[in-house]
Amino acid sequence: IGEQAFQRGELVSAELVALTYGALVRQLFLDYQAPEDVNEELERIGYNIGLRLVDDFLARSAAPPCRSFQATAEIVARVAFRMYLGVSARPANFAADNTAYSILFDTNPLAEFVEVPDAVANTLWYSNIFCGVIRGALEMVQFSVRASFTRDMLRGDECNEIRVCLLRELEETVPLDKET
Amino acid sequence: IGEQAFQRGELVSAELVALTYGALVRQLFLDYQAPEDVNEELERIGYNIGLRLVDDFLARSAAPPCRSFQATAEIVARVAFRMYLGVSARPANFAADNTAYSILFDTNPLAEFVEVPDAVANTLWYSNIFCGVIRGALEMVQFSVRASFTRDMLRGDECNEIRVCLLRELEETVPLDKET
Repeated sequence: IGEQAFQRGELVSAELVALTYGALVRQLFLDYQAPEDVNEELERIGYNIGLRLVDDFLARSAAPPCRSFQATAEIVARVAFRMYLGVSARPANFAADNTAYSILFDTNPLAEFVEVPDAVANTLWYSNIFCGVIRGALEMVQFSVRASFTRDMLRGDECNEIRVCLLRELEETVPLDKET
Repeated sequence: IGEQAFQRGELVSAELVALTYGALVRQLFLDYQAPEDVNEELERIGYNIGLRLVDDFLARSAAPPCRSFQATAEIVARVAFRMYLGVSARPANFAADNTAYSILFDTNPLAEFVEVPDAVANTLWYSNIFCGVIRGALEMVQFSVRASFTRDMLRGDECNEIRVCLLRELEETVPLDKET
């Protein structure tokens, strides 16, 4: 279903997003300098994107509602990655108590054309915006999570891995009637 | 030919690039505050992207070489816009002496989801990165130009218009032999 939604949606070239994202990362480096701060800022920017993207996702994906945290793994990896990035990702490494999983993927459109300077190669998580997007989107469907890169092909790892850990399930808030 | 290259290339969702670009613009506002400075910075970032994109473009587009400035209008509008943005643009308003033309387009993937605050609505050229991309790319094929938005649907105009003015044609520089 990710594939169909991907084909139905408007598409732009991966080069364009890679270069736009590269400009964003470069700008953040000018502002913050420390790669740890850039990581954090990318995550925060992604979080805001995730909060906004989830409505579009639910409208276009026709994905079934996630009844459990565990079920979000499949949707994030197989539907959302396909729909927004045009790449296949797969869920893996589920924790025994189902409070954590990994998203693995081999192709990363954001990281095309990228050469990370040696000085920050082991501290910058170049694509950290993804972690924020996942956190923001899952929060909107009542799962408070922390997401972080654990492997990145830009660092020479054999695949990209984002670890998603459940912090808590949020109560569905019932909107209050404005009259009362 | 833009369409074929578009379909052959890697694609990502337009939402993703719109939101990434929005984050870049927001970050530049934090840094520069004055919308005129943000315009300039977006143009500069685009210029650097244009310099890099042109190789990819020439390799993938199979577009014929532009023998004249006038001929670049057709390639930019009908091939490059299609290939990178997935939208149709058209060349128009050629100057009588062929030193200027406009690129017109009705759909702008960068400007989706965007609400420009009233305070900067008439000073910010939100998508000004395009002007820089055009300048950078044309410089690589020996045309020094200035490109600027003259109409923007975000400002209520009936279409988007980028005016491209030829400053001068550059000499083809013959690479010097490193041994000499």
